[in-house]
Amino acid sequence: MSAIEERLDEKKRAVERALAACLAGEDSVLFRAMRHAVLSGGKRFRPLLLLAAAERCGAGLEEALPFACGLELIHNYSLVHDDLPVMDDDDWRRGRPTVHKAYGEPIALLAGDALLTLAFEVMAGAAAPGGLASRRAEAIALIARRAGASGMIGGQVLDIDFRSETESEAAYEELMLRKTGGLIMAAAETGAILGGASAEDRARFTEFGKRLGLAFQLRDDLQDAAPRDDRSGFRPNAAAFLGAAAARARVAELHRAAIGGLEGTGLLTEELRALALSLEIRTA
Amino acid sequence: MSAIEERLDEKKRAVERALAACLAGEDSVLFRAMRHAVLSGGKRFRPLLLLAAAERCGAGLEEALPFACGLELIHNYSLVHDDLPVMDDDDWRRGRPTVHKAYGEPIALLAGDALLTLAFEVMAGAAAPGGLASRRAEAIALIARRAGASGMIGGQVLDIDFRSETESEAAYEELMLRKTGGLIMAAAETGAILGGASAEDRARFTEFGKRLGLAFQLRDDLQDAAPRDDRSGFRPNAAAFLGAAAARARVAELHRAAIGGLEGTGLLTEELRALALSLEIRTA
Repeated sequence: MSAIEERLDEKKRAVERALAACLAGEDSVLFRAMRHAVLSGGKRFRPLLLLAAAERCGAGLEEALPFACGLELIHNYSLVHDDLPVMDDDDWRRGRPTVHKAYGEPIALLAGDALLTLAFEVMAGAAAPGGLASRRAEAIALIARRAGASGMIGGQVLDIDFRSETESEAAYEELMLRKTGGLIMAAAETGAILGGASAEDRARFTEFGKRLGLAFQLRDDLQDAAPRDDRSGFRPNAAAFLGAAAARARVAELHRAAIGGLEGTGLLTEELRALALSLEIRTA
Repeated sequence: MSAIEERLDEKKRAVERALAACLAGEDSVLFRAMRHAVLSGGKRFRPLLLLAAAERCGAGLEEALPFACGLELIHNYSLVHDDLPVMDDDDWRRGRPTVHKAYGEPIALLAGDALLTLAFEVMAGAAAPGGLASRRAEAIALIARRAGASGMIGGQVLDIDFRSETESEAAYEELMLRKTGGLIMAAAETGAILGGASAEDRARFTEFGKRLGLAFQLRDDLQDAAPRDDRSGFRPNAAAFLGAAAARARVAELHRAAIGGLEGTGLLTEELRALALSLEIRTA
């Protein structure tokens, strides 16, 4: 493990500990379902990106950690609701039964709601001395916007009705940008906000997150390109849409642009570079 | 209409305008479903209680309104999810088809998620000069706690498995206190927080909200006591549980205690009294 990998791994363990602490509530079926959803592995890409951007912009780990957790709780609530029979109807996630398979649909619905609510409790409840309170409020509002009707949830709605045969590449990019890009952009931007970055630097982090968000979804689509016999086989997929070769080329281009955009302005750190590169498509 | 009723009605119109402004986003199916859920009448009891408590404690209407809206958005998301087939399976609400009857289940699920998310965007995005930012963060954290796994959602989970035959009156009160009381307590407490009330006064508003929350649920149960032929007939109901006469006596006692608790410390205003009395059971 390289020095950078070790530092990222250390941060990942800090995120895991903080998430476990957020979810250490009572021993009820609801909290068990919430822990089942969140404490089950996962790459923690969004919290790590948030922490790396925050560090670059001058925010401390303790200050940024509640937001890293909040973002990961939001990501995980969206997976719980996405997996429900009325949505994607998935039985398995990360090698374990989905929450509704393990706890039933009513509890899965409520556990998702509770994770989303907890995210904001954790972010708003973080101690912030003096003037930092307004940065924190700005970060909460930004995360809510990126996660909400004009962001991630809006993208999920576009996804429900999207038909690759009739819609344009630009429409698919808009969908990806909201559905997957929403929280990844929010991760990079929140780090910049918490660190008190200038408007220009903040916009550069937004652009970085946007490019990584698109690359993330394209890579997922490529890995998921084999047709499936459930209805997810009809869902939009960049590999089917653009063709695998074009999708691969686009991922590589997005990586170069993301890294280049920060590098040229001196904002790139080794951790940010490593996180961007972790999304590269590995070919055998 | 009395002078007090007129003032409450004026505040209610301000809440309606602010909610409409929050939801004036794009003309998508998602925003239409969100507007269907929220802009369809409703007594707006929680926002009015928040505004009355805030006014008593010295917070301005403009400052408190985003929180009044946030609380009402949270209340309405919970109704949308509660109405889903996997929960109460209700087809009608406030004389109109429920959101999933009008827009389908996937959109109803996502519209509920989006309303919950929007609540926090609205609250965190409210302009707060200087030191008020930390009050606002405190209020957001409090609302999230009362609405979340240890508050309203926790109460909904208790409700799923509650059986009147085997559980105690105290267990039923705990359920009501979380499920219905959560947001009503939050309304009164948030007003006190935004107005910068002392810890003692804040605790008095918490107690006021707690008593009103219990009275609110008991009154609902009494009005809803006729057995129904759907599965809600099996749900806990105070009228069935305590007996109608005892439930009525308890509501009257809660009113007296709520009003008396504020009156004795000089915190009661005519508006707070009118809101408490609006929950009285009217007998023919």
